[in-house]
Amino acid sequence: MRWTQTFIPTLKETPAEAEITSHKLLLRAGLARRLAGGLYTFLPLGLRVLRKIEAIIREEMNRAGALEVAMPCLQPPEIWQKSGRYQDMSEVLYHVYDRAKKEWLLGPTHEENITVLVASEINSYRQLPKNFYQITVKFRDEIRPRFGLMRAREFVMKDAYSFDVDERSAEVSYQKMYDAYVRIFERCGLRTIAVEAHTGAIGGSFSHEFMVPAESGENEIAFCESGKYAANVEKAVSQGPLIPTPTASTGASPEKFPTPGVLTIEALAQPPYNVPAHHQIKTLVYIVESKPVVLLLRGDDQLNEAKLAGALGTVLLRPATPEEIYELLGAHPGSLGAVGVTHVPVYADLALRGAAGMTTGANQDGFHLRHVDIARDIKVTRWLDLRTVKAGELCLATGLPLKISRAIEVGHIFKLGTKYSEKLGAVFLDEQGRPRPAVMGCYGIGVTRTLQAIIEQSNDKDGIIWPMSVAPYTVCITPLDVTPGGRIMSIAEQIYRQLIESGVDAILDDRDERPGVKFKDSELVGFPIRVAVGEKSLANEQVEIKPRAGQLMLVHKTEAVNRVLELIKRAN
Amino acid sequence: MRWTQTFIPTLKETPAEAEITSHKLLLRAGLARRLAGGLYTFLPLGLRVLRKIEAIIREEMNRAGALEVAMPCLQPPEIWQKSGRYQDMSEVLYHVYDRAKKEWLLGPTHEENITVLVASEINSYRQLPKNFYQITVKFRDEIRPRFGLMRAREFVMKDAYSFDVDERSAEVSYQKMYDAYVRIFERCGLRTIAVEAHTGAIGGSFSHEFMVPAESGENEIAFCESGKYAANVEKAVSQGPLIPTPTASTGASPEKFPTPGVLTIEALAQPPYNVPAHHQIKTLVYIVESKPVVLLLRGDDQLNEAKLAGALGTVLLRPATPEEIYELLGAHPGSLGAVGVTHVPVYADLALRGAAGMTTGANQDGFHLRHVDIARDIKVTRWLDLRTVKAGELCLATGLPLKISRAIEVGHIFKLGTKYSEKLGAVFLDEQGRPRPAVMGCYGIGVTRTLQAIIEQSNDKDGIIWPMSVAPYTVCITPLDVTPGGRIMSIAEQIYRQLIESGVDAILDDRDERPGVKFKDSELVGFPIRVAVGEKSLANEQVEIKPRAGQLMLVHKTEAVNRVLELIKRAN
Repeated sequence: MRWTQTFIPTLKETPAEAEITSHKLLLRAGLARRLAGGLYTFLPLGLRVLRKIEAIIREEMNRAGALEVAMPCLQPPEIWQKSGRYQDMSEVLYHVYDRAKKEWLLGPTHEENITVLVASEINSYRQLPKNFYQITVKFRDEIRPRFGLMRAREFVMKDAYSFDVDERSAEVSYQKMYDAYVRIFERCGLRTIAVEAHTGAIGGSFSHEFMVPAESGENEIAFCESGKYAANVEKAVSQGPLIPTPTASTGASPEKFPTPGVLTIEALAQPPYNVPAHHQIKTLVYIVESKPVVLLLRGDDQLNEAKLAGALGTVLLRPATPEEIYELLGAHPGSLGAVGVTHVPVYADLALRGAAGMTTGANQDGFHLRHVDIARDIKVTRWLDLRTVKAGELCLATGLPLKISRAIEVGHIFKLGTKYSEKLGAVFLDEQGRPRPAVMGCYGIGVTRTLQAIIEQSNDKDGIIWPMSVAPYTVCITPLDVTPGGRIMSIAEQIYRQLIESGVDAILDDRDERPGVKFKDSELVGFPIRVAVGEKSLANEQVEIKPRAGQLMLVHKTEAVNRVLELIKRAN
Repeated sequence: MRWTQTFIPTLKETPAEAEITSHKLLLRAGLARRLAGGLYTFLPLGLRVLRKIEAIIREEMNRAGALEVAMPCLQPPEIWQKSGRYQDMSEVLYHVYDRAKKEWLLGPTHEENITVLVASEINSYRQLPKNFYQITVKFRDEIRPRFGLMRAREFVMKDAYSFDVDERSAEVSYQKMYDAYVRIFERCGLRTIAVEAHTGAIGGSFSHEFMVPAESGENEIAFCESGKYAANVEKAVSQGPLIPTPTASTGASPEKFPTPGVLTIEALAQPPYNVPAHHQIKTLVYIVESKPVVLLLRGDDQLNEAKLAGALGTVLLRPATPEEIYELLGAHPGSLGAVGVTHVPVYADLALRGAAGMTTGANQDGFHLRHVDIARDIKVTRWLDLRTVKAGELCLATGLPLKISRAIEVGHIFKLGTKYSEKLGAVFLDEQGRPRPAVMGCYGIGVTRTLQAIIEQSNDKDGIIWPMSVAPYTVCITPLDVTPGGRIMSIAEQIYRQLIESGVDAILDDRDERPGVKFKDSELVGFPIRVAVGEKSLANEQVEIKPRAGQLMLVHKTEAVNRVLELIKRAN
């Protein structure tokens, strides 16, 4: 391709809309343009990268035996009602109305669609296992689309759905996808960490997320430096708080004392009270599927909503309002406690087990209770893991300290079990002729998000540094004088032609621009190898080869093509 | 690919939903499945065909210098309001609402999106011409989705948009696309006729449709057998009616006569009146952009609404209701005429020019007028070409009779002019530094419709006959005994492997099914070449090669691969 024949609108300035590095570079390198909030047009170079990532995904999915299909974007709400997700995912579903005012949905994923298909087409164990995938556009009604392709209204996703005769076979399908994902991200030049994760509204029993560590990430992951344990912080566990919970009872009964104006754990830790946070019980009220529950945590711990949802098996939960709380406990937030509470279920975090000599709210505004022994004074309905792990806590598997890092989720694989197959009738006859629901898994990759995550992970002050496998073009040939028929242009054209003939994705920067502009643009766009042809080096019959992230080399002009081919070979 | 490893749910029976041949075969061959009305899931084989068609389109678009991009499906209504199409195309636009109740549209095409992009990115004649295309899913709120992929709610379309500095350059861009379309359909093995067409709601001055002649088509085309003229019947012209219009005046003035119960041209042509249809003036009333107009045609002619819309430059027109007509002319349909009408514009078809001695309604229920000389008795506001041509009328270009045939529209190219660039600000500075709107063209191919049109054109009683270029697999190897390690399977496996190694898209039917079932399926799916390996022919060391649409050949087993390669080569 010749630069003047394609369309690469690089920008010197960063558009105001861009917040994080990869978003800025996406726009500055002319890969994409914003149409509206969360909606982007892929320009020729951006689309080339997208297609290369898609091709890698397709190869690995096919290699793993998955079968490519393509399902419609528009979906009938009826199947979403059957699966229960019409309600569970209502927040992110776009509603579409046709001329007859009939409602349709724009699918964020396609569990319903594929399960309905399998229900009508597969009826024998002999047709299983099957794994269907598609690489198509998906939609999600984001509260706040942002960070470019990271959180968009519309995005390209690879989604796959496996159907197996039993749990054991489903495990094999899951592992195949896990392995395929590792290969896919590796081949894209992306460093990812596979972490244990919650299943959320998708449902199912078990899942892994593929995470790209990055400051701008919207997730937090905890991981052991041994590599033996990694989990989304929403799911992560540890040996517990570094400071042990006090378990020595004072012997005294709960005693009310005035704490006027004290509404936070921090305030109670200050003089004149001086109650350390880990000597306090934090009391929260949640509404779970429209019923209130009281949650207890150590004062220095944070509630992990995902753990709560996971433990209770529902995503329909929210903090109670101050009004709801007052009606329930007779006090406002800041003075809440569970001593004597029997009319509401009380769920306590495991770190509070055996806690004694604790302080908590008195359910009377402006008062707290001390000398609280949890076993004696609080009727705990269930003990649950509700707290969020902290950096430095010890790994359950290795005893080493956990690290916590922000990360971008690029893939997510789920063991779904029979949730969808039961509800939507994906039942087959087993060897004994008995009807059984297929055991499912589902597997997603955010393809457009992966593209931007690669940029986020691989850049420097000058621009993007594309891995060879997904670069829009592998080599940029930059003649410093484009006079047609001139020596410089002729040599550049020759190198360009020879690279194309060798099957290399090359672009010839045939613009009549200053060398500085051309160099800056090729660095901004991030082509892995640049070959500059100019008067100065040609005086010695040489051209300059500059790997985007490596040292400049001067090579004899007749050696340029071979040297480039070597660099490409070495990278693969 | 092995048959048992993919998913080809062929059907013996035709599903009730399918009406036309290609729709039946689409389902029976296991290429796609219906999710809901006008929504289809592509199964593995159908998707392979789709991808091959897309690849051909992409190659030819790239060869023609067009640049691939990808625009979002969701579009902000604001840009559609600016272009005027929010109203003009309101009937086919899906409206989407997000959680903030903000409206979005699902795009049937992307003129607005690309013009807005060009408006912000291109500002100099030096950046032109440019032609951007995409192959993406589109949406259309069809009154009645039907015929499978032919008229679907959601479909894959290739749309391209060219931007040029002036008309002359725009002509070149248009012609490049015309030529690319001819090559694309040829390479897909599809016989098309390029016809002149109306531009409709897309707008613009000129357009061609690429039509596949087919009984089930929803369009009608008129064409001269010389090949020198072809047009959509909506647009087609001829030398005029075969029976000339009477032009001899009777000399008498218009005379009212009673015609009780006579409400049609046909009735007045019967005894006791005996007025031949071509001696009658047909009077219609239309509401054009909310104002009434009277339309006159020869009694034996049909109004062509597209011509009317084209002549008046609006798509906002409809027949008036009987109530509106009565209020306007004082009579009901069946007794209408234009004699003495001066308070409404009267548009007369050119075939009525000079008509004399005619009969028409008297604008009094149950009465007609005779001895009407149009020039003398009717105040014609404008003379227009309003009639629909008929088979057998003579071609303006050649004088030969026109044929009329039903056809499927698979492509449509438009000269748009500056309609969108003016409204959406796609203005560039010319060589003299003057701002000028870009001259646009737009170019569509219904990709999923093309897939089905190929089936509609190429099939027999046993199933589909795929052209080699787009077949899901080129060769199907059919061992008649699949015992692993047996002689038959070993030879079949060897042929399969050798074909794959030669780069041939081959499928091995490794199902343990009766030969009859396997033969029927391979014919139904329509693989271009079948290689059957069975005991009987192997007795002579031979295998059977059967081109889907050709004669069976027995060849030595070691010659099979070469013979297949020859057949493939010959087809290209």
